[in-house]
Amino acid sequence: MTLPAGSGRPTVALAMLPLFTEHLFDAALLGRLRVVSNVPDATPLTTFEEPRAAELLPCADILLTSWGCPPVDAYVLARAPRLRAIVHAAGTVKMHVTDACWERGVLVTSAAAANAVPVAEFTLAAILFANKAVFQLQQRYREVRAFRWWPAEFPALGNFRKVVGIVGASYVGRKVIDLLKPFDLAIQVYDPFLLDADAAALGVRKVELDELLRTSDVVSLHAPALPETRHLIDRRRLSLLRNGATLINTARGWIVDGEALEEELKTGRINAILDTTEPEVLPEQSPLYDLPNVFLTPHIAGAMGTETQRLAEVAVDEIERFTRGEPFRYGIRKEDLGRLA
Amino acid sequence: MTLPAGSGRPTVALAMLPLFTEHLFDAALLGRLRVVSNVPDATPLTTFEEPRAAELLPCADILLTSWGCPPVDAYVLARAPRLRAIVHAAGTVKMHVTDACWERGVLVTSAAAANAVPVAEFTLAAILFANKAVFQLQQRYREVRAFRWWPAEFPALGNFRKVVGIVGASYVGRKVIDLLKPFDLAIQVYDPFLLDADAAALGVRKVELDELLRTSDVVSLHAPALPETRHLIDRRRLSLLRNGATLINTARGWIVDGEALEEELKTGRINAILDTTEPEVLPEQSPLYDLPNVFLTPHIAGAMGTETQRLAEVAVDEIERFTRGEPFRYGIRKEDLGRLA
Repeated sequence: MTLPAGSGRPTVALAMLPLFTEHLFDAALLGRLRVVSNVPDATPLTTFEEPRAAELLPCADILLTSWGCPPVDAYVLARAPRLRAIVHAAGTVKMHVTDACWERGVLVTSAAAANAVPVAEFTLAAILFANKAVFQLQQRYREVRAFRWWPAEFPALGNFRKVVGIVGASYVGRKVIDLLKPFDLAIQVYDPFLLDADAAALGVRKVELDELLRTSDVVSLHAPALPETRHLIDRRRLSLLRNGATLINTARGWIVDGEALEEELKTGRINAILDTTEPEVLPEQSPLYDLPNVFLTPHIAGAMGTETQRLAEVAVDEIERFTRGEPFRYGIRKEDLGRLA
Repeated sequence: MTLPAGSGRPTVALAMLPLFTEHLFDAALLGRLRVVSNVPDATPLTTFEEPRAAELLPCADILLTSWGCPPVDAYVLARAPRLRAIVHAAGTVKMHVTDACWERGVLVTSAAAANAVPVAEFTLAAILFANKAVFQLQQRYREVRAFRWWPAEFPALGNFRKVVGIVGASYVGRKVIDLLKPFDLAIQVYDPFLLDADAAALGVRKVELDELLRTSDVVSLHAPALPETRHLIDRRRLSLLRNGATLINTARGWIVDGEALEEELKTGRINAILDTTEPEVLPEQSPLYDLPNVFLTPHIAGAMGTETQRLAEVAVDEIERFTRGEPFRYGIRKEDLGRLA
C-alpha cells in the first residue's frame, strides 16, 4: 500500500464490516470514486486499531462508512487531522458519529433517504395487501379449498376510499405518502414536528395520534426509536384501533408495547404486518409466528441484497458533490438527531 | 311502478344480479343517475322474462348492466325499440352483449378500465414482494424462529434494477406499467398488438415472449383469455424462466398450462403468485395450496368489496356523458373484442 502525495483531490478511507463492502462498492462504483478522489486502500478498516489505520487515518479527508463502522471518537479524530467529512452508506449515523465529530465540525451525511426507499416500498405493498385482506383470503382459501362467495366473508375489503394513517413524517413516512399518491386512498399523518404548511404540501390531513388510530383502516408506523417514542403505541392506544384494522410496523419494535400487542392480536380483533417486533428476534414460542391475523417477517424491509447498491451510489454521489465544492444533499446537523432514527 | 312519459331525458333500466346492485348503486349514485335520466325502477331485472321486463324494456334508452345480466339477444332487442346504449358496470361485455346488439348499432361501454385498477394494484404489491422474497422470508422465519443473516440465503433479493416482464399491454398491463414508474425497475413488455411507438410512449422495452421469459426476474400475465392465448405459457416456455424467477398470474388460468406449471413449481426452481389457476377452484389435493414457493389466492385481484363502487361510478360517468351528447370514454367496438378480455 502506497499513499499518494496530496494532489488537491481528497483522500477517502473506508470503514465498515467487509461483508458489506463487496456488495456495496463494486468495480464500477470504486471507479467513480477514483475519478474524484484518492482511494489508497479499497479494503475497509473494521477497527481503528489495526496497523492500516495508522497509515490511512493521517491522510484521510473523507471517511466513507457503512454498517459496522466503529465509533469515530476523539482518539480516532486526533489521528485524522485532515478529516473533514463522514459519508455514511447506510441509515443511522448515531452508532459511529460521536459528539467529538460534531464538536470538530466534521461534515456528516448518510444514505438514510436511500435506505428509506425499500422500507417505503415494502410498506406500500403491505398497505395494498392489508386493505385487500390478501393474507386472510390466502389462508382461508388454503383452509376451505373450495369456492366461496368471498365478499360475504370480507364485505369491507378493497383499496378504494380507505383511510391510511401514517405515524411519523420521517424519510420513510414521506416516501410512503409519495408512493400512495396514485391510489384512491385518504392519507392522514401524525407527527409532532409536522407543520400545517408541510402537511398541506404533502397533500395529507394532519391529525393527533389518538384520532389517527381511531379513524384509520391501516396504521403504518414510521417514527424513529427515541426516548419519546418508547411504547408510543401502548395498550390504550392499541385499543383505539378499529375492529379489523391493520397495524404495520416496519420501523422499530421499540415503538409498540410488545406484550400489549400480543394480547390484542390474540383476540383476533385487529391484524398486523410486522417486520420489527419487541423483542427481536421473537422467542420460539411466540404466538405471533402462527396467528392467522399476523404476517411476520424478520426485519427485512430496509435495504437488502441489490438494494444496498443504492446506498453506495448515494454515498458516491455525496463524495462527488463534496469534491465539486457543493453542499451534501443529505447533510445531517447535530440538532437533527433528536428527531432522526 | 309508474313509467314517466318521455321527458327528453333517457330512461335507464338496470339488469344484473341484485346481489351486486346494493353494493354498486347506493343512494348517492342513484341520485346522480336521476339528475340526468329517468330510473322508473331501481330494482334490477335478473331475467328478461319477468313481468317487469315487459314494462321496462319498451321505454329503456339505456341498459345499465353488471355481473349476471342475461344475454341481450335479438328477442330482447325486439322488445326494446328505443335501446341505444348498454353501459356495463363491470369488466367483460362478452357474456351479455350479443351480435344482435352490434348489428343494431347499440353503443356499448364497460368499466373494464376501472376493474383493471384493483388487479394492477394487487399485481404491483405482488411484484414488490416477489423481488424482495417476502413470502419466502416469512416462511423461513416461521421455520427457524431465530436470527439468521438472511442476505446469505437470499443474496439477490431486492427491488433495485430488477427486470419485470409484462405479458399483455391490456388495461391491466398498462396500469401495472404506470404504477411501476416510481420504482427502480426495468420493464419489458410482450404484446403482439403493441406498436413500437406505443412501447416508447409507455417507456418500456418491447420484446418477444421467449426473450421476456428468459430475461425477467418477475413475469406478470395480463393477456386476455382468447383462443390464441390458450396455454400461451406452456411447458417449454415455463422452462425458459430464470431460476428463482416469479410468475404472477392475476389474469386467467387459461393462459398457463396448469399441469406443466404444477410440475415446474414442485421442483422449487421458480416461484409463483397465483390469483387464477387451471382449474379454478383447484382440487383439494393440489400441491399448490402448500408449496412454499407458491402464494395462492382465490381470484380476488379484481374489483371486490369497496372497489366495486368504482365500477358503478364509472358507469354513471358514462351515462352522464351520453346525456350531454358526448362519446363514451370507454366505448367498445365490435372489432375490439378479438383483443379484449
